[in-house]
Amino acid sequence: MHALKVTRAEDFPEWYQAVVREADLAEPSPTRGSMIIKPWGMGIWERIQGELDRRIKETGHDNYYFPLLIPLSFFAKEAEHVEGFAKEMAVVTHHRLKQIDGELKPDPDAELTEPLIIRPTSETIIGDAFSRWIVSYRDLPLKLNQWANVMRWEMRTRMFLRTAEFLWQEGHTAHVDEADAMDETMLALEIYRSFAEDFLALPVIAGEKPENERFPGAVRTYSIEAMMQDGKALQAGTSHYLGTHFAEAQNIRYQDRDGGKALAHTTSWGVSTRMIGGVIMTHGDDDGLRTPPAIAPRQVVIVPMLRGKPEDADLKAYCAALAAELNKESVFGSAVRAFVDMKDAKPADKRWDWVRRGAPLICEIGPRDAANGQVTFINRNALREGEKIKSHTLTRDEFVAQAAGLLETNQAELFAEAKTRLEGAIRSDLVTFADLERYYGTDENDAEFKGWARVHWSRPTGAALDAVGDRLKVLKLTIRNAPLAQPASFGVCIFTGAPAVEEILIARSY
Amino acid sequence: MHALKVTRAEDFPEWYQAVVREADLAEPSPTRGSMIIKPWGMGIWERIQGELDRRIKETGHDNYYFPLLIPLSFFAKEAEHVEGFAKEMAVVTHHRLKQIDGELKPDPDAELTEPLIIRPTSETIIGDAFSRWIVSYRDLPLKLNQWANVMRWEMRTRMFLRTAEFLWQEGHTAHVDEADAMDETMLALEIYRSFAEDFLALPVIAGEKPENERFPGAVRTYSIEAMMQDGKALQAGTSHYLGTHFAEAQNIRYQDRDGGKALAHTTSWGVSTRMIGGVIMTHGDDDGLRTPPAIAPRQVVIVPMLRGKPEDADLKAYCAALAAELNKESVFGSAVRAFVDMKDAKPADKRWDWVRRGAPLICEIGPRDAANGQVTFINRNALREGEKIKSHTLTRDEFVAQAAGLLETNQAELFAEAKTRLEGAIRSDLVTFADLERYYGTDENDAEFKGWARVHWSRPTGAALDAVGDRLKVLKLTIRNAPLAQPASFGVCIFTGAPAVEEILIARSY
Repeated sequence: MHALKVTRAEDFPEWYQAVVREADLAEPSPTRGSMIIKPWGMGIWERIQGELDRRIKETGHDNYYFPLLIPLSFFAKEAEHVEGFAKEMAVVTHHRLKQIDGELKPDPDAELTEPLIIRPTSETIIGDAFSRWIVSYRDLPLKLNQWANVMRWEMRTRMFLRTAEFLWQEGHTAHVDEADAMDETMLALEIYRSFAEDFLALPVIAGEKPENERFPGAVRTYSIEAMMQDGKALQAGTSHYLGTHFAEAQNIRYQDRDGGKALAHTTSWGVSTRMIGGVIMTHGDDDGLRTPPAIAPRQVVIVPMLRGKPEDADLKAYCAALAAELNKESVFGSAVRAFVDMKDAKPADKRWDWVRRGAPLICEIGPRDAANGQVTFINRNALREGEKIKSHTLTRDEFVAQAAGLLETNQAELFAEAKTRLEGAIRSDLVTFADLERYYGTDENDAEFKGWARVHWSRPTGAALDAVGDRLKVLKLTIRNAPLAQPASFGVCIFTGAPAVEEILIARSY
Repeated sequence: MHALKVTRAEDFPEWYQAVVREADLAEPSPTRGSMIIKPWGMGIWERIQGELDRRIKETGHDNYYFPLLIPLSFFAKEAEHVEGFAKEMAVVTHHRLKQIDGELKPDPDAELTEPLIIRPTSETIIGDAFSRWIVSYRDLPLKLNQWANVMRWEMRTRMFLRTAEFLWQEGHTAHVDEADAMDETMLALEIYRSFAEDFLALPVIAGEKPENERFPGAVRTYSIEAMMQDGKALQAGTSHYLGTHFAEAQNIRYQDRDGGKALAHTTSWGVSTRMIGGVIMTHGDDDGLRTPPAIAPRQVVIVPMLRGKPEDADLKAYCAALAAELNKESVFGSAVRAFVDMKDAKPADKRWDWVRRGAPLICEIGPRDAANGQVTFINRNALREGEKIKSHTLTRDEFVAQAAGLLETNQAELFAEAKTRLEGAIRSDLVTFADLERYYGTDENDAEFKGWARVHWSRPTGAALDAVGDRLKVLKLTIRNAPLAQPASFGVCIFTGAPAVEEILIARSY
């Protein structure tokens, strides 16, 4: 009795694909591993981009655009970096096609002398520019950002969460020393945390990744982690302190105040269209997506109950006037986005389209509403009463006056609901590895909800950390991060029994 | 005595490169044929994107995002299309790198079974989606747009004007019949014309391209053409009626009202970062760019004359308050963009940076201005009086009150100046081919200003048109378009002496 054919409880991964498809967010493309982003998905991304861009600029970063293609030799300079990405790089080798024996093929006479890589990330080509632009300490900090498409040839892809091509924002900065670069690393992390929470209604935990989960070439990697409705973690953004690794590889040096030469310290940080996957798995329900009002491309959708009769003209005029009035109101710092759906389709079909997309307020206006000067609407956050769709009626003036408040309440409710789930699903009573094993089990098909575990550890490194990773892998677990907020004292390490030095989050993940 | 080392009169192409470099617009990248777009250039592109996106959405188009990579076989379907683009395609053939004999190379075991092409344009992959999405006449018109990077492996590149990778917008639509598709083709052309004129202050002439200049696969191609200060034409946007060519190649059929099957008629249209090249060559002067206020990332730049003394604090506060007041004013439908340049550099250097970038109003505020409550400023449109920089002084209140008006006047002046140049430099008195030869000459190094010619022709096709093209080529001329506004009657064809049927524009071009 729901708008989707599969529920979250029945099959969470199938439900996810159903929302992506039915909410007009995206669909698979004929290019392996890439997707076509459709208007509702693109509209959400445009809102994410607009607001995040504002916050990034406000904190002193300028937008640039660097080339899509990076010469292969640039990657060879930083060993860890290339090792991390070499296995998933799309390589351009020719610059022309030719008819050969009646078939269109890469022209052998147009082979590039040096292959070009479609950027998986841009540290190498931006580092090269830094080495030219940075001369003296006066040029630092240099803080830039770019919005771009990038490509990683993933073997198993899933729409928004892991696609070969994805859209993202990548910040790259250079600083005089570690302290300044670390301030920037934490500033970016905080931008992501507050943006995810305030704007996407995604509660997250910010913290540092363990050594074996660092970005290839980073000294320290931080992440924000969100909890999906199946209890799995989603890494929704990362911020890296790169030390002087890239500066050494690419000769990013500056003249300091005393006239000496010093290496710059660099950072990088990014979030991507993956965030939309996080929004779906956090706020979706069995009727589709519930789009947080702040990022909903259309916040109030008006469906006129047209009947193909002369009275339709009055109804259309009433709806148009209502939308115009709503558009004059303001919410989340912008004008309310109201829209009259005039598509040539049955009103009931249109209603369900907007329910699945998760437009926050859906008005269904019939001739009687128009005559009585009232608005009948559904609140997507409280769609049903039992099985039945619950609709509300207000006078037109009341509705216009209350719309912004309803949208704000919806946004707050979505956040509160997810926050309660997150906080209620982190166990801190698992203190031995046997506890972990009992809780998570090793059953491949165990679909039961399992949240996260907050445990103490002694922060092993190198081979000892690899051994920890192997033990967790059996339970299909990974270390997500060590939250920034740490307790005053620690118990014993869940892996070794040695005195612990840190609290970490463990979870299954996307 | 100018801010640039080379003037337009001395060497126009060199002057162009100097503006691109000195105005912080872009620089060459280590990836052949691609550029790095820098903050001032990117800020201009963001304004272009924001406003054009608004106009495209307002006329009923939704944004989508399609894959960067297109399977090679997709191009083979439309013969003219592939012939037009095959020679300049970047081809991805491998998806992994591997160390082989100590060298990083494309892994032979990771060769793609079908090569992928970096999109030079997206008709083929969008047409494929149309064939799946369009079922009945109720699905039409389908009107979409995408903002994307595309790649054409150009042999000779020039920043903004012709780069291997460029940023653009591409509209793609499908319609029930030719009439509806032609309405769309002309709507897109009109969006471009009005956008170029109102927002970029670029006067243009809209018209139809001759047969030999059509987009590969199009039935009719229209363009807007702008005149640069060296008299050359720049094609600044194109709109194509594609007939049923792509619908046939990709099976885009719909069920019509009578239950029969019909081919859809499609269109496509695009503008790119090339527009920025047009802005530079239209509005630049020997001191750099004059950025039209509507697209200037910063419209009022405030340079405090700091001296590293305690009084600096008051001065900074005065400048910050001035910027805050200006930001509350509104112009061109948005808040005024005022900015205090606090960079650690000499005030005079900062002033010249902003002159070269072409910030419309540049305030230089010293302690005396702050004490007297006044604003001393330069208007970039009227930078000099003779050789001297001309500065103005107003009370702070006057300046705040007049700022929006000054910006509007500057925008209008830039347009009027370019419009006068365009109209004064189109000759309509060249009626024989010998006249054309005399005016344009064949001297390779002829740098003298030559405008355009408006001539009559009999609209030859096929081989006869090729012959016309060859004759024009000797004079380094091409046919730009047949303007939409045509005279009531025609003389004789300048090429054949036969009765003419159309008036066309002939020019040298970028």
